[in-house]
Amino acid sequence: MSALNTDLYELTMAAGYFAAHKHHDVATFELSVRRLPATRNYLVAAGLQQAVEYLLNLRFTPEEIDYLRSLPHFRNAPTGFFEYLSKLRFTGDMFAVPEGSPIFPNEPIAIVRAPIIEAQLAETYLISTFAFQTSIASKAARCVHAAQGRTVVEFGSRRAHSPGAGILAGRAAYLAGCAGTSNAEAGMRYGIPVFGTAAHSWTMAFHDEEEAFLTLQRLLGESTVFLIDTYDTLDGARLAARLGKPLWGVRLDSGNLIKLSRQVRKILDDAGLHDAKIFATNDLDEYRLAEFAKEGAPLDAFGVGTQLATSADAPSLSAVYKLVELKRDGHIHYTAKYSLDKNTMPGAKQVYRYPDHDLLTLYTECNDETGDPGEPLLRPVVIQGGLLEPLPTLERSRAYAKQSIAALPKQLHDLESASLPYPVNISPKLLALSETRRQEFQLTRD
Amino acid sequence: MSALNTDLYELTMAAGYFAAHKHHDVATFELSVRRLPATRNYLVAAGLQQAVEYLLNLRFTPEEIDYLRSLPHFRNAPTGFFEYLSKLRFTGDMFAVPEGSPIFPNEPIAIVRAPIIEAQLAETYLISTFAFQTSIASKAARCVHAAQGRTVVEFGSRRAHSPGAGILAGRAAYLAGCAGTSNAEAGMRYGIPVFGTAAHSWTMAFHDEEEAFLTLQRLLGESTVFLIDTYDTLDGARLAARLGKPLWGVRLDSGNLIKLSRQVRKILDDAGLHDAKIFATNDLDEYRLAEFAKEGAPLDAFGVGTQLATSADAPSLSAVYKLVELKRDGHIHYTAKYSLDKNTMPGAKQVYRYPDHDLLTLYTECNDETGDPGEPLLRPVVIQGGLLEPLPTLERSRAYAKQSIAALPKQLHDLESASLPYPVNISPKLLALSETRRQEFQLTRD
Repeated sequence: MSALNTDLYELTMAAGYFAAHKHHDVATFELSVRRLPATRNYLVAAGLQQAVEYLLNLRFTPEEIDYLRSLPHFRNAPTGFFEYLSKLRFTGDMFAVPEGSPIFPNEPIAIVRAPIIEAQLAETYLISTFAFQTSIASKAARCVHAAQGRTVVEFGSRRAHSPGAGILAGRAAYLAGCAGTSNAEAGMRYGIPVFGTAAHSWTMAFHDEEEAFLTLQRLLGESTVFLIDTYDTLDGARLAARLGKPLWGVRLDSGNLIKLSRQVRKILDDAGLHDAKIFATNDLDEYRLAEFAKEGAPLDAFGVGTQLATSADAPSLSAVYKLVELKRDGHIHYTAKYSLDKNTMPGAKQVYRYPDHDLLTLYTECNDETGDPGEPLLRPVVIQGGLLEPLPTLERSRAYAKQSIAALPKQLHDLESASLPYPVNISPKLLALSETRRQEFQLTRD
Repeated sequence: MSALNTDLYELTMAAGYFAAHKHHDVATFELSVRRLPATRNYLVAAGLQQAVEYLLNLRFTPEEIDYLRSLPHFRNAPTGFFEYLSKLRFTGDMFAVPEGSPIFPNEPIAIVRAPIIEAQLAETYLISTFAFQTSIASKAARCVHAAQGRTVVEFGSRRAHSPGAGILAGRAAYLAGCAGTSNAEAGMRYGIPVFGTAAHSWTMAFHDEEEAFLTLQRLLGESTVFLIDTYDTLDGARLAARLGKPLWGVRLDSGNLIKLSRQVRKILDDAGLHDAKIFATNDLDEYRLAEFAKEGAPLDAFGVGTQLATSADAPSLSAVYKLVELKRDGHIHYTAKYSLDKNTMPGAKQVYRYPDHDLLTLYTECNDETGDPGEPLLRPVVIQGGLLEPLPTLERSRAYAKQSIAALPKQLHDLESASLPYPVNISPKLLALSETRRQEFQLTRD
């Protein structure tokens, strides 16, 4: 969680802000997503815990300072800059939507307000932290929905983008409704239920399948899951049926899962093993899960790996971190960007949620929509460099996610693109500020 | 780099192998990729350094052992198992292709031979480590090729799948030919050149663009890059032209980059700034770079971010880790999997490279293709738990990658799918072993 884990330009800008005596200016940045991926109707915010850990521990080691000193970019760095960096801690505020909140484009997931160098430095790490877990949680919510109540377990550690990402993918997937993860470290670190029994190599390491199955059964008892497709799936199913209890069930990892699940179900039922479950894996995603449900395939639980742990159909989000306010000598300057295809709106914002729409307002604006104040999503989390109060437990965030996702308009749950996007309205005051700033900006350029 | 960062089933299998007194059996696993993604004609192997660091440091902490003890899965774990785990170190061998080697489906990237529990445990971490960096290096090689000699810098940390993945993406991209990375920690950790100057927030933090540009120029001198599109690209270019030297160049991050680059080039040239370069960013990938080259857009260097750091068009590889040999009481058993759509070939393998094809053989087979032994790709790296000799420096691996990629048949460099895949032939001895094992397997089942 090194402060050096950032884009170099955050550091050259830091040197420049220091040189320009701007390091006491207080900047407000908003972290949001520009657009929904084509295959998402909403996103599920995640990553706040890791963002908080980063901010509370932000510091440079002496070796990192020495490294920066050695770079040509800092040849003209101002006197005192490296000493400033070596003492740098995060002293600002972070507001954020709770983990598990459904969010929409241009709604802030987090707002960081701090002396400009601190806030700027955090950009790269915060975007990556929020965007990655948010993309996994959003994918997981789709899988859980498509499974229609059947169990979905995150199984993708080996395909995640580095072993560290695998742990975080397990966390984000659980937050959004998966029953657990295969990743043991995610289990220990975050208290997530862990799943797993045996691989094909287990079966291959024994003289025959029967010896492999019996050994596993002695070890796992009622948690036993026989992976039956190492050699021949139906032979494997018949062997499982013959060995019988104690048994949780069997796993299928290849072939036509709909057809095989029916055949295997019959073999198990014929042996009286009506309680034995069928667990499926093999490059599953929400579309496959929906197909299984539609076909009534007798599958009881799913391990979703690659597609979930990489959010393969939407492997990145257009997450940005934009300067919206700058406080200098007691004055607030509202800032925005007016380039061709990447405009931003000035001012720190709040999101008020209603049953069928959101309202984007200024943060300081008391929402006065007739009669109903709505629910403000952004809450203070870090104040003056300290955690305001303990973050909710992962279990609580998971319950909140479940409830908040369920409360979304029904059409957003479709796997296909919703015909109408969820309405995010903009308050008159925010619109007016945005327009005023644009006019001021035009005046300075005419 | 915790030993617990693995799929739970590796640990339940470990308990089972121990219970079955198989923990002295020596297993050989091969890590390979099943298929090329549709948009890759070859892969560039990467991740070996991190894999070695993992194996040399594999161990469980007492807290991790306590966690495992607390799980229901280990209720019946055999006596002595947790003590065994607490003392577990990697004592085996790893063979691997050098980082930067082009590789093809079913060719081992690495082979691990160790007591079965050690080798099995490493599966999840090793697949993730090799597959992630290999996918980034493979994407980077395409971008570098498409840029036709222009500079490509990895700029994607914020979109990588977690901050840790961003560091490794920078490493893999540099290995495969990028000129450097924006990630400062990757720069320090791996000695990679780092790039970066300023963001839009820099411009917005000053009273006007001119003050922002002048301050940057004072700091960065000849490394100065003006980001000219915060408000209006051509106005920004005119300002850059007026401020003039010292200047490396300008950066474009929005709009029609082909058209704008021509207009900006003219503005710079008219001001006599013929040496000033134009750097482009904005969701670039190899196809955009190829388009720029085809159109002759006057762009000199590129920051490639999201698409590169997530390998967005192929965000995962079908990387697997398959048991191919098992040595028990001095006997080698060759193992393979015969399930419907996921067959494997038994026996540890070697890859011999020729100018126009590869030959997959048994590892112990002295290749005797007429006249030319070819170049064996898999080399011993870790022997009996120790590093055989220092790994090549990243610079050396990068030079090797450049040379090896350049030596590939020309059609593999096309961005489109090669009409004929690169031939990977199988030696008669390997074919014979595979066939014998399949027949033996059928016999046991008839």
